[in-house]
Amino acid sequence: MDSSNNLSDVFLQYSAYMEDEQSLREEIRSQVRELEQTAREMTTLLQSVHQQDGIQNIPAICEKAKGLYPTIKEHYAALSKKVPKDQYYRFHDHWRFVTQRMAFVAALLVYLETEQLATQQMVADAIGVALNKEDGFILDLEDYLAGLLMLSSELSRFVVNSVTAGDYLRPFRVAQFLSELSAGFRLLNLKNDNLRKRFDGLKYDLKKVEEVVYDLSIRGLKPKQET
Amino acid sequence: MDSSNNLSDVFLQYSAYMEDEQSLREEIRSQVRELEQTAREMTTLLQSVHQQDGIQNIPAICEKAKGLYPTIKEHYAALSKKVPKDQYYRFHDHWRFVTQRMAFVAALLVYLETEQLATQQMVADAIGVALNKEDGFILDLEDYLAGLLMLSSELSRFVVNSVTAGDYLRPFRVAQFLSELSAGFRLLNLKNDNLRKRFDGLKYDLKKVEEVVYDLSIRGLKPKQET
Amino acid sequence: MDSSNNLSDVFLQYSAYMEDEQSLREEIRSQVRELEQTAREMTTLLQSVHQQDGIQNIPAICEKAKGLYPTIKEHYAALSKKVPKDQYYRFHDHWRFVTQRMAFVAALLVYLETEQLATQQMVADAIGVALNKEDGFILDLEDYLAGLLMLSSELSRFVVNSVTAGDYLRPFRVAQFLSELSAGFRLLNLKNDNLRKRFDGLKYDLKKVEEVVYDLSIRGLKPKQET
Amino acid sequence: MDSSNNLSDVFLQYSAYMEDEQSLREEIRSQVRELEQTAREMTTLLQSVHQQDGIQNIPAICEKAKGLYPTIKEHYAALSKKVPKDQYYRFHDHWRFVTQRMAFVAALLVYLETEQLATQQMVADAIGVALNKEDGFILDLEDYLAGLLMLSSELSRFVVNSVTAGDYLRPFRVAQFLSELSAGFRLLNLKNDNLRKRFDGLKYDLKKVEEVVYDLSIRGLKPKQET
Repeated sequence: MDSSNNLSDVFLQYSAYMEDEQSLREEIRSQVRELEQTAREMTTLLQSVHQQDGIQNIPAICEKAKGLYPTIKEHYAALSKKVPKDQYYRFHDHWRFVTQRMAFVAALLVYLETEQLATQQMVADAIGVALNKEDGFILDLEDYLAGLLMLSSELSRFVVNSVTAGDYLRPFRVAQFLSELSAGFRLLNLKNDNLRKRFDGLKYDLKKVEEVVYDLSIRGLKPKQET
Repeated sequence: MDSSNNLSDVFLQYSAYMEDEQSLREEIRSQVRELEQTAREMTTLLQSVHQQDGIQNIPAICEKAKGLYPTIKEHYAALSKKVPKDQYYRFHDHWRFVTQRMAFVAALLVYLETEQLATQQMVADAIGVALNKEDGFILDLEDYLAGLLMLSSELSRFVVNSVTAGDYLRPFRVAQFLSELSAGFRLLNLKNDNLRKRFDGLKYDLKKVEEVVYDLSIRGLKPKQET
Repeated sequence: MDSSNNLSDVFLQYSAYMEDEQSLREEIRSQVRELEQTAREMTTLLQSVHQQDGIQNIPAICEKAKGLYPTIKEHYAALSKKVPKDQYYRFHDHWRFVTQRMAFVAALLVYLETEQLATQQMVADAIGVALNKEDGFILDLEDYLAGLLMLSSELSRFVVNSVTAGDYLRPFRVAQFLSELSAGFRLLNLKNDNLRKRFDGLKYDLKKVEEVVYDLSIRGLKPKQET
Repeated sequence: MDSSNNLSDVFLQYSAYMEDEQSLREEIRSQVRELEQTAREMTTLLQSVHQQDGIQNIPAICEKAKGLYPTIKEHYAALSKKVPKDQYYRFHDHWRFVTQRMAFVAALLVYLETEQLATQQMVADAIGVALNKEDGFILDLEDYLAGLLMLSSELSRFVVNSVTAGDYLRPFRVAQFLSELSAGFRLLNLKNDNLRKRFDGLKYDLKKVEEVVYDLSIRGLKPKQET
């Protein structure tokens, strides 16, 4: 029967297409795993800022972590080559989480070095992806924002450990930074449930840092430099 | 304070970007609603093939339903204009369901007219979208396949009503078609949970049509024309 | 302290308001329970159409069931008096379900007597509520539609029992009715999840009735009156 | 066929009715979004009371925030015009959350300016809605109460930041206020699960403020002015 042969041929084509997509996904997954590995290394390096001696050596720790940026960029370049230009959002879920984590890492590095907020552009440059849709592999705004919201949790922990290490000034500056960050997020109409929940986390982190500041103040440990 | 102002400016930009995306989604949603309306009209028209007098007038019913293709094409053209070229998959969820339904409608029309399987190319042409990623607004393979799997349920119902209307030949041909369709799907490595579940539906529909064929055979109602 | 007294006074007012609402809800609940009781009695009476001797006595069964309409109307009148005019939707959940059930009962009665579809107006008149918002206690469109969708399940059962009782004509007419009802629902853009799920039930019921028709046809039990 | 045409006409009417409701909901949603935007701006402005320099400038901050009340009132007026008089509770869910937030904002403003509790009447007047059901668009009592319960969390944070800014008197007054507020809520028979859970939050906030008061007392930082 003629139609039967045709039908089978047609499905063999679909099958080939699906197998191709399947192996593309496999390749993407494997490339993302390498990216995750380097991201994990950077995160681990940055964990030492919470140590007593780390707090004294922040610039050195940042330098060491930044030494992995070229590898991160290579991974993104390799990933970008695998993903067809117009299909970024088809496979987005594969690298969404690691990109949020890298946005966090980049924002933490910028904060530790300059006490400023890393913009989306700064994060995109640091990890070697584009900012605009037209430029191919991009840093999605929501992934960037999710990364910023991870930052607040890290900083609230950092504040506690700074006080332990005898740095009583840090909490006041972090409180100020998180308060501005929180004001920034309030300007956004967060439709994304995930971002909204994480923003609640930021509010909670800010409150926690303010309580550290309160503890210092009430004990007369508020440094003079702060008026 | 300088950093605070910057931070607020930066977030206002992000906010504007998010509002833009929000209104784009609104526009897409509203365009999809119009598409759904026409898809609903086509489905309703095609429902009359299940009526006693409809079964005698299939060509006329098909012609009437096909009269809505130009409107469908207009809706897809309008939708396609709204969606940025490289962001098809970013907004895919909005039109995924109606496109599966249109794939079903197109495949039903082709089956009713030719008793052949509509290929992805044929469906894409019928509804006025592209087949290749490079050509912009496309018919995703999985949406096309989901449409085919809706077809089996409709055909099993059609078989029952054909027998009622006295057409004892139809079930044999539909059984053959569904059996080939099922064989086709078996060639695919279905990773997609949704497709896999619907494929179970196809197996069930085929079984049901085979039972009708059995009923006819056991009662000696199997037409001679069938070899 | 002055503010403390004020604050306590203010909360006592709120408390009184909430207690009032609470007892209003209690009264509504109790009135709805009475309505449910009569609705249950009507449903029970109508169940006998499924019995062998019931199928021969449908007009008598309908008359008996309709004898409870005055009581239903009294209950709705009493309920309507309890609910503040502009707060129908505040307490809607209390009578939503029983009203859907009464819409079903009224539509079943109309179908059994005339084999026609009861319109929203006809159902509203039968149970003694208004159709328009301006007229106070109303029959909400979605509740009416939910009632119609309950009807399809009842009719698919009725068809089976009619055949058992030797009425081979009934299934053909019910299939026609449900097919038209289904076409009607296809015209609606059902946003309400509950209605959408019940509409899937109607499609299933229609398929079941068509299978009964098929069974009759294949066995040569298709009555002559039907062409 | 006559009945079929009728049935289709009837459903076309229902469809038109449902489409109308759908577009009304769209309009309401879009109006609510504008209201949310202004509410967000007011909340952001009020966040600066937690800053070191903000605590010294509360009257100025309040004035600035209150400058947005006319816009809020315009939004509520526009919203009120869209909602049919007797259908407030039909669409209530659309503006419930933002109204709770506005009740919080209004209550915070009244507290910051007078250290008194804003009554339901005061909140209704501030945002330009009615108090009584007869007057159309109202402030639902439960929404008002939900707003008050958001206030306690904000005040417990405010207390911590006041101490940091050197104001050791504030915590004693806030503790007194929250204690009265808590006593007020105890007078209510809270059936609403949401309110009940938030009331647990108030108890927790009160405890936290009392701990600040304890910290101050134990360190001899309790100001003399407090009796």
